[in-house]
Parts: sequence; C-alpha cells; structure tokens
Amino acid sequence: MPALTALALVCTLTPSPAPSSSELLARLILDELEKHGVETSSVRVVDHDVKRGVLADMGNGDEWPALRERILAADIIVLSTPIWMGHPCSVAQQVMERLDADLAETDAQGRPIMYDKVATVAVVGNEDGAHKAIADMMQAMNDIGFSIPAQGGTYWVGEAMQTVDFQDLDEVPEAIATANARLARNAAHLARMLKAEGYPAE
Amino acid sequence: MPALTALALVCTLTPSPAPSSSELLARLILDELEKHGVETSSVRVVDHDVKRGVLADMGNGDEWPALRERILAADIIVLSTPIWMGHPCSVAQQVMERLDADLAETDAQGRPIMYDKVATVAVVGNEDGAHKAIADMMQAMNDIGFSIPAQGGTYWVGEAMQTVDFQDLDEVPEAIATANARLARNAAHLARMLKAEGYPAE
Amino acid sequence: MPALTALALVCTLTPSPAPSSSELLARLILDELEKHGVETSSVRVVDHDVKRGVLADMGNGDEWPALRERILAADIIVLSTPIWMGHPCSVAQQVMERLDADLAETDAQGRPIMYDKVATVAVVGNEDGAHKAIADMMQAMNDIGFSIPAQGGTYWVGEAMQTVDFQDLDEVPEAIATANARLARNAAHLARMLKAEGYPAE
Amino acid sequence: MPALTALALVCTLTPSPAPSSSELLARLILDELEKHGVETSSVRVVDHDVKRGVLADMGNGDEWPALRERILAADIIVLSTPIWMGHPCSVAQQVMERLDADLAETDAQGRPIMYDKVATVAVVGNEDGAHKAIADMMQAMNDIGFSIPAQGGTYWVGEAMQTVDFQDLDEVPEAIATANARLARNAAHLARMLKAEGYPAE
Repeated sequence: MPALTALALVCTLTPSPAPSSSELLARLILDELEKHGVETSSVRVVDHDVKRGVLADMGNGDEWPALRERILAADIIVLSTPIWMGHPCSVAQQVMERLDADLAETDAQGRPIMYDKVATVAVVGNEDGAHKAIADMMQAMNDIGFSIPAQGGTYWVGEAMQTVDFQDLDEVPEAIATANARLARNAAHLARMLKAEGYPAE
Repeated sequence: MPALTALALVCTLTPSPAPSSSELLARLILDELEKHGVETSSVRVVDHDVKRGVLADMGNGDEWPALRERILAADIIVLSTPIWMGHPCSVAQQVMERLDADLAETDAQGRPIMYDKVATVAVVGNEDGAHKAIADMMQAMNDIGFSIPAQGGTYWVGEAMQTVDFQDLDEVPEAIATANARLARNAAHLARMLKAEGYPAE
Repeated sequence: MPALTALALVCTLTPSPAPSSSELLARLILDELEKHGVETSSVRVVDHDVKRGVLADMGNGDEWPALRERILAADIIVLSTPIWMGHPCSVAQQVMERLDADLAETDAQGRPIMYDKVATVAVVGNEDGAHKAIADMMQAMNDIGFSIPAQGGTYWVGEAMQTVDFQDLDEVPEAIATANARLARNAAHLARMLKAEGYPAE
Repeated sequence: MPALTALALVCTLTPSPAPSSSELLARLILDELEKHGVETSSVRVVDHDVKRGVLADMGNGDEWPALRERILAADIIVLSTPIWMGHPCSVAQQVMERLDADLAETDAQGRPIMYDKVATVAVVGNEDGAHKAIADMMQAMNDIGFSIPAQGGTYWVGEAMQTVDFQDLDEVPEAIATANARLARNAAHLARMLKAEGYPAE
C-alpha cells in the first residue's frame, strides 16, 4: 500500500508563533489523517514571503516556489482558512491566485499538474461564513485539478455576532470532531485510490 | 413628511399558519420600522401560487402579479429568508427570478421601475450561511434597482452544526435586537430621502 | 468492469418540450459519458411536481420520491442549472433542499445514503455567474455526500451583459467541448473506482 | 451644494506603472463621477505596503493608515477588483480585512465611523465571476457601514474561457458605458443626500 502524505496550508493572518484557530483546526485534521497512515506536515503561508501575482514564480525572493514544491509532493491538501467579513482570508485567496498558474501547466500525460491529488477545506471563525468559504475554496481547488472526497469540508463558527475563538473553547465540540474524522477517512480513501490509479490522459 | 410603507417578503418553505423563524425575524424588523412611522405589512410567498419563470406575469393563475403590485407600492422591502445548505431558500431565489423582469421595465423617466426603493435582508438558520445569503440577495436586489442602507442586513444563526431554531430561543439575543433596530432606523432614513428626491432620469 | 449509470438533473425553469440551454449542455456531457461506457438518462425537474420542503417525501402527490429513487440508482449526477441574477436557478436550490433530508439518512455502514456517488455541475447563462453557481452547487452536493472529480464543473456564458443563448450558438465553442470531455472522463474514472471500493464505514 | 469627493481603491495584483484593466474600469467611473461635480482620485493598493491584519494600524511601516485617511475623507468609494478563480482579488479581500477594524470604531453620534459614505463596486476579468465578486464586496462594504446606490455595481468579462483583457478591447462596450454612467449618477445622488443629512445617531 503506497504511503500517503498530507500538507496543511494554514491561511491565518497571524504569523508564527502566535496561536491560530485555523492552525488548530488543521492540526486536528492532520491527527485524524495520521490514524489512516498518512504522513503529515503543515505550513503557515504568512510565515513565508509569498509574492502577489499569478505566475508559478514571481521572482524577487518569492517563497511560493518552495511551497509549491511541497504541494506537488503531497497527496492530500488541507486548506485551512479563517473567515473575515464572511469570506475566506486574503491569504487563502492569494494561494488560489498562485495555484492559478498550474492550470496551464501539464504533466507528461497532458493533464494539469495538480491532478490525482485530493483537497479538503477547513474553515474557522467567530461566527458565520463557513459554508461560503468552503464553497469558494472547493470550487477553486477543484478547478485547479484537485478531487474532493465526500464531505470534504469541516468548520467551526460560534453563534451569530459572538466573539469567542475556536482555540479558546474548552473542548472540541463532538459534531466537529466527527466531521473532522469523516473528512480525514474519506480523504485518505480517495487519495489512496487516485494514487493507485490516476485520471486518464487527455 | 411623507408616509412610508414597508413590505416583508418572507421566503420560508413553510406555509401559514405554521410558525416560521424567518417570519419572526421579519416581524421584529417591521416592529422597529413602525417606531419610525413606517406602515408595515408582511407576506409569506409560499402562501401564494407563484409560478416559475422570469416574466412579470406567467399567466395560468400566477399570483406573482398581485405580490408585485405590493412591492411596487412599498418604499422598503424586507427580504427574509432561511438558509438551506448554506444558501438562500429556493423561494427567495424564485422572488429574484420574478423581479428579473423588472430590470427591463422603465418608468416615465427611463429608470428601472424599482428605483427609489430601499431593500434590506434578514437571514435566519440553525447554523452558518447568513453573510453569504445576505450577499446573494443584496447584490440581486441592488441589481434590480433597490438601494441598500448602511448595515442593511441582519441575521441569526446558532453555533456550527447545532439544531435549535431562532423561534425556539428564550429571547432575542441583544446583538440581533441592536442590528435589527439599526437596520430599521437606517432603512427608514434612506427611504425617506429617496421618496423626497429620487434618482435622476437616465 | 461494473456498468455505470449517470443521471442529469436539468434545473431549467422551462418545462418540456420547449428547448433549454441547460438541457443541451447536460446532453453534451451525457454524450461524453457514453463514450466511457456509462448508461445515461436525463430529467427536467420542472416537468415533475416537486413539492417545497426538506423531507424525503412531502406527501400530497409529491413527485420528488420518484426522482430521488433515480438519484439513488445513479453512480454519477450531472446537475445542470441556468444562471438567474448571478445565482443558480431556484429549481437547483430546491433540489438541494430536497437532498438535505438525505444527510441524516444512513446506509448499513452508517454512512450518508448518497456516498460513493460522483457529482458534476454544468452551468449555462447569457452572461456571468458560472463559477459562483458551480461553487454553490459543488459545496452542497459534496456536503450531502457526493464526491467531485478533478475539474468537475463546466459552463458557458457569453460576454458581459449580452443576450444570446447557448442553444442559439452556431456551434459549441472548442474550450467548452474540451471541458465537457474532461469532466466526463474524470467523472467516469472516479465513479468506477468508488463503485469498486466505496468509502469506509463510519 | 456641498462638494463631493470620490476615491477609487484599485485592487489589481499589478503594481504601477504597468497597465491594469481594473484601474481602467475605475478611471471610466471616475470620469463619469466628475461630470456630476465630484472630485476624484485613485490609488492602487499594491503600490503601498499594506500589512496583513485586522487592526487600523498594524505598525511596522504599515501604509494602510494613510489609505484609511483617504477613505475617511471620501464621500464615495469605487472598489475596483479583478477576478481570480471566480473570486475577488486577494487585494480586495485584504482591504475588507483592514476595514473590519472600523466596524468597532464609532463617531461622536455612536455610529460606525464609515457611515454616510457610498460604496460602488467595479469588477473586471477575462471571463466570469463578476456578479459574485460584486456580491462579496457589496455585502462587506455595506456591513462596514457604506450605503449602496441603485445599481451600484458594474463589470466587464468576456465569453466563457476566453483570454482577452478589458484593456485590450478596441472600445468600451456600450452596455458597460451605460452601466458606468448610471452607477456614477446614482452614487453622486446618494452621496449628496447622505452628506446633507446623515443617518440618525444610535
């Protein structure tokens, strides 16, 4: 059975080492993935100097190419983003802009270079916006070539207009833990199948 | 000072007389509007036989034309919708489809017939989806010709993946009551100004 | 190799037999699926008396249960919707509301009943709104339990604010034909794998 | 009659002096606003070192505070954004994140500090995504306190999956010129009224 690897792209606005709810949610998912034999790693995008633009390498000290190598090496991406004003964080959108370049780049079989990989989406906020952030990111990741496993999104938000953070909860609500476990189980299953037998050539 | 009228278009899936959280939220807003001298009324769209389509009158017993007359007679619309699967209810989208016809219809000054009216949006659900439903409905109502007052959206949703309804809360959370009052105050102000001096001719 | 079946849920506002751009786009995708050995069929939802609500059977002559049986029998769903006011058609949203009931219904392995099926989304409009309609429908279908193959969305829209319909084009633009073929190839591949080996039990 | 000022926040990824379609569309709107006696200026956000975060001043050489002063001094904001992957540009989302701080800041009357200002949205892309970007940005700007005039959005996109830029068109399509003129006329009217008589105190 081929070994699988997962990479969490944590799209918080907060640089390390300050705590981050979106990193915590990503971590919970990676823990679940490890139960299925997946090797995991995680990166906070804002810890790196990712330049604005839509090329694979914007030059000028751009640190995206190194992140892109890690994405290319992974079988599963966990895209984790906070919600701001009801939308995915600008960092998550910037990741989509950088991945946009890979739509045009194809592998030896003429397929977009990001094929045969699985994407999942994790969203966290004080309140409201999760389904929409999941929709925005799923559509974009799928457009780039990622496959989405059944129930490939998970999230936590509090009641309308409240202010407590996910990282300040006493414990992870059971419904969220269940959703995380399901997402991880399904992602590992799909990634394993796609690794064994990828999509046909163009 | 000209009298103002407001109409709530309640887009619940549930016909009268069963209770409805989106009707309740609309009712709270109408109560606030009345404090500003606005005459109010409310309609559940599903209580009427609104036909599918994008014409002002689809014939065949279509009850949209009567609703449309009430919209044309109102200065303020409170569009109230539940959330399903993260989106505005199909009834709210159907209202947009029927209003689509009015984009092409112009008044004596060559302006779309829905000009000089104010739209506000109220969204309610067990959990998550409010900002997105507000965004979808604001953009559509604005496109049709309605103006949006400052902070013209209000909502309630519970914590992620929970199941209690708005109508089953012991009391209206203070933040929601404040948002409702603000929305009503701003809507009345904007509607009064637009009634006194409408947008210029094309 | 197990035989696969695909069902197109055509969410046009227009009843048969009038021509429909969203039916045409669905038909093109079904043609592509047939090249991969998939048996196909198609239904216009508005030809059936689908009641409003969020139960699997709303009673009272509700024709959703029959459509639901066809969905349960299919391996691949092609959800095809027009764009109105920038959003998926109310008929598509209504389909999501009816499928919402199936989130709670589980199979013998404790999994949501719609697991191991593949969903794709086809969107058509005079102008603008396709990516958003794809995002809305992908997220909802995925939430219900469908898996999304790489580049599982396809669409046609014309230039901003123009009025020609897809069905009135002289020919299908090459980029759209290519996207349709890719979507079908990937959907068939994913459905075949999931049919051979479904997601693990809860 | 009080003088009005408008500021275009151009959210292209491309720094000056390279040409930008979103700057061009903003320029066309500012030209229309000037016909109504509005003084205009424009800024490309990426020409400034705007730090990540959700505070009014992130310190460390943050150039947002200077932009924020220009926003506070303006009566009308033209938020202009390109489309990437179907969504508003990360720069536009970053502007929303920075404006988020102003939700909590109130004026002498207890109102959010951005009240009595008008927001309009201009969106441009090779293809598809305009209505959704308008919806996302309108809802966010409205939430912050901006009012939206009738038909306060304008856009250009080409046919599905095509690659010509707005700035490379031979001429501005008439429908877009009409929409720009309408947007500017309505924005000036609304801004003039709100300047003369702002929203009531909390």
